[in-house]
Amino acid sequence: MARFAVRMEVDLPADMDPDAKADLLAREKAWSQQWQRSGEWVSIWRCVGEYANLSIFEVRDNEQLHEILWGLPLFPYMTMQVTPLATHPSDIHA
Amino acid sequence: MARFAVRMEVDLPADMDPDAKADLLAREKAWSQQWQRSGEWVSIWRCVGEYANLSIFEVRDNEQLHEILWGLPLFPYMTMQVTPLATHPSDIHA
Amino acid sequence: MARFAVRMEVDLPADMDPDAKADLLAREKAWSQQWQRSGEWVSIWRCVGEYANLSIFEVRDNEQLHEILWGLPLFPYMTMQVTPLATHPSDIHA
Amino acid sequence: MARFAVRMEVDLPADMDPDAKADLLAREKAWSQQWQRSGEWVSIWRCVGEYANLSIFEVRDNEQLHEILWGLPLFPYMTMQVTPLATHPSDIHA
Amino acid sequence: MARFAVRMEVDLPADMDPDAKADLLAREKAWSQQWQRSGEWVSIWRCVGEYANLSIFEVRDNEQLHEILWGLPLFPYMTMQVTPLATHPSDIHA
Amino acid sequence: MARFAVRMEVDLPADMDPDAKADLLAREKAWSQQWQRSGEWVSIWRCVGEYANLSIFEVRDNEQLHEILWGLPLFPYMTMQVTPLATHPSDIHA
Amino acid sequence: MARFAVRMEVDLPADMDPDAKADLLAREKAWSQQWQRSGEWVSIWRCVGEYANLSIFEVRDNEQLHEILWGLPLFPYMTMQVTPLATHPSDIHA
Amino acid sequence: MARFAVRMEVDLPADMDPDAKADLLAREKAWSQQWQRSGEWVSIWRCVGEYANLSIFEVRDNEQLHEILWGLPLFPYMTMQVTPLATHPSDIHA
Amino acid sequence: MARFAVRMEVDLPADMDPDAKADLLAREKAWSQQWQRSGEWVSIWRCVGEYANLSIFEVRDNEQLHEILWGLPLFPYMTMQVTPLATHPSDIHA
Amino acid sequence: MARFAVRMEVDLPADMDPDAKADLLAREKAWSQQWQRSGEWVSIWRCVGEYANLSIFEVRDNEQLHEILWGLPLFPYMTMQVTPLATHPSDIHA
Repeated sequence: MARFAVRMEVDLPADMDPDAKADLLAREKAWSQQWQRSGEWVSIWRCVGEYANLSIFEVRDNEQLHEILWGLPLFPYMTMQVTPLATHPSDIHA
Repeated sequence: MARFAVRMEVDLPADMDPDAKADLLAREKAWSQQWQRSGEWVSIWRCVGEYANLSIFEVRDNEQLHEILWGLPLFPYMTMQVTPLATHPSDIHA
Repeated sequence: MARFAVRMEVDLPADMDPDAKADLLAREKAWSQQWQRSGEWVSIWRCVGEYANLSIFEVRDNEQLHEILWGLPLFPYMTMQVTPLATHPSDIHA
Repeated sequence: MARFAVRMEVDLPADMDPDAKADLLAREKAWSQQWQRSGEWVSIWRCVGEYANLSIFEVRDNEQLHEILWGLPLFPYMTMQVTPLATHPSDIHA
Repeated sequence: MARFAVRMEVDLPADMDPDAKADLLAREKAWSQQWQRSGEWVSIWRCVGEYANLSIFEVRDNEQLHEILWGLPLFPYMTMQVTPLATHPSDIHA
Repeated sequence: MARFAVRMEVDLPADMDPDAKADLLAREKAWSQQWQRSGEWVSIWRCVGEYANLSIFEVRDNEQLHEILWGLPLFPYMTMQVTPLATHPSDIHA
Repeated sequence: MARFAVRMEVDLPADMDPDAKADLLAREKAWSQQWQRSGEWVSIWRCVGEYANLSIFEVRDNEQLHEILWGLPLFPYMTMQVTPLATHPSDIHA
Repeated sequence: MARFAVRMEVDLPADMDPDAKADLLAREKAWSQQWQRSGEWVSIWRCVGEYANLSIFEVRDNEQLHEILWGLPLFPYMTMQVTPLATHPSDIHA
Repeated sequence: MARFAVRMEVDLPADMDPDAKADLLAREKAWSQQWQRSGEWVSIWRCVGEYANLSIFEVRDNEQLHEILWGLPLFPYMTMQVTPLATHPSDIHA
Repeated sequence: MARFAVRMEVDLPADMDPDAKADLLAREKAWSQQWQRSGEWVSIWRCVGEYANLSIFEVRDNEQLHEILWGLPLFPYMTMQVTPLATHPSDIHA
């Protein structure tokens, strides 16, 4: 298992067709929730005041993380920052 | 309750006295674990390849978060990046 | 109560329809003034020479701040920088 | 009257003599509070997790602002970011 | 009187209608020269190799500077960098 | 197996004791070559004109990569940039 | 022979015609694989979570590297970062 | 005579009309070669992997350099970085 | 004649000997005022809140500007940003 | 033959022993002039107002360029930016 933090910023065109946008966001939510339910997408939080989220992933390996992120319907509108994580020696749960 | 992500980078002088350094790190660990045990410091992960961590805090308010961070024995050697978090509409646990 | 400084930069497309723009700006002003009147949006200043403002918020928590910012009609055209604030030990009013 | 936002970051050497540091910080506090009492230094807030503050000044002119900032005992250890402010058209108090 | 340096970068769309562009630039020049003649816009220089200028302003206060800059016909296409200036102790004219 | 690119920049103090430096560099070389021989440190190249290298790692997981990097005798003098890699669809060897 | 690392970021317009895009990507893949087969394009990896790759080239000289990169069908949509590489003294294969 | 290094990056819209683009590039080349022949544009090199060049100019003064650069047919699509140069004390030709 | 804007930031060590510092600053002032009197150093302003100045120079050529700047007693402690200037077409004095 | 532009910035400690500094600079000059005489170091210019130079190299390959740069006595005090160059299609000499 490999843990990663991913910061995703979304930049949608302001003049996007409302129906196309609603459909896109519905598919985005479904994709995210499918991977939350299967356990790889552990946490997702909104960054206050930004169209952005900070997420924690626990995946099999780099390949699986890329498959999840690349498959996001919003991927073409996103800028991602991926940080590989390891156990911290001060972690009381480790 | 307010949730925050904090990225802490540590830059210790390379010529620090080994005993002073060991003492500093022991006090750092104790301070971190005290706040982990009381529940405000929810998660701490090492950023791979860096003397840095990414942490999640759930605190009473901004004042308490600053009290925890300012009190870190390593604070004078740290650069912090604080991101306030809110609930994400796609979060299946929200 | 939690205090935040927020810097908002606006980037409107230069060829926006004048009526759509006027309507957008009127709704922006109404949203801002509603939250000024209810007390959460404490101060708003123009940054000289920029289509930007610096604002101070006193909100219940991170969730409320995000609700106010996300609801801004200009939000899709804005870049925000959010700084959580705490009491300063030199503040004569604290 | 001219209004400015100033962000001040402090970077003290970690090995500063404790007495010299205490004296420096006492003089810093006195200088800040003198200008708060005379009305030019309107607000000062701690930036959470940083040895930094965000302050609002209402001064006679640029010369007076520089005199206040340059006179800070911590000035040689500070990095400043100065933003001139003007009235915002949405301000309900303007 | 308050003195400021302002760096203005212009980014016009490459496919702008030539007549609209000519009209815009004529109005820009008129606005600039009006404020040069009244004395607030003291100097304007072209930055070599850039569609940009460096200007010096001597204005009544921040409000007047913002009024001049905001009123520029090219303002929606400009990025500005505003630096408040004060007397330098080595200035032989001060 | 997980593949990573790591860029390591070295910043040694110019006045380091020559013997201490020679010892440090010898231990650095030994640590690097031990992990090259065991197969995790696949490639190491010098970045031309810089005290820096670009390396490719194939490791068991994030934990092992951090163990290798953290264990470098030069680690306290290094700045690292870690990029997780995955298979590229155009790779003729994949 | 000269070795280079090249990081290529792709930014395709989100509204590109699907057939034109499919054709473009097919030609991109063919161009990349032709140079992989002839030996100049030694490695290509996907950067996780990004529409980007990191590649290693072993070319005759700078001219040939530029010919390969400039000829990429995706070149007009790419941002490249080119790092010339040399042998590292710790490389066990050198 | 004044010597300058100028780095010019070109960013053409991907959907530019091929004939308009061919005409633009032909006029660009002619303008560049005219100034190379008259001696002011001393050197021009392609930056590998980029739609960019590095050029050396020897001009009468700043005014002439700006006239040459501003007159480039590609100027509206370019970002320039201008570095004034002087004689180096180690130059064996100086 | 060639005109330049130069922004000079000063970073003196905080523990500099007071006499050495006073002597350095006196020589700096003398050097600056000598070139102001001879006409090359046209203007010098303090950047508010910074140990920095913005200056305008009118010099014979690049060589002379470098001679003036390099000769500054504070040069080893300064970071400079040099912008070559040309006549602006909206300048009413040109 | 491979051509490169290299920008070298020097940052010497302000309190360096004058004799050690003079010796270092003499060896730097000798190393530079040796490679100028043998033809690899084609041009060297001072960047106005900076302790920096811009140089053009024509070398056998990446290895030779690194050998020249790494061998500079000032290397430990330098930050380098290396740009590989190729023939430009508008070059009248190509």
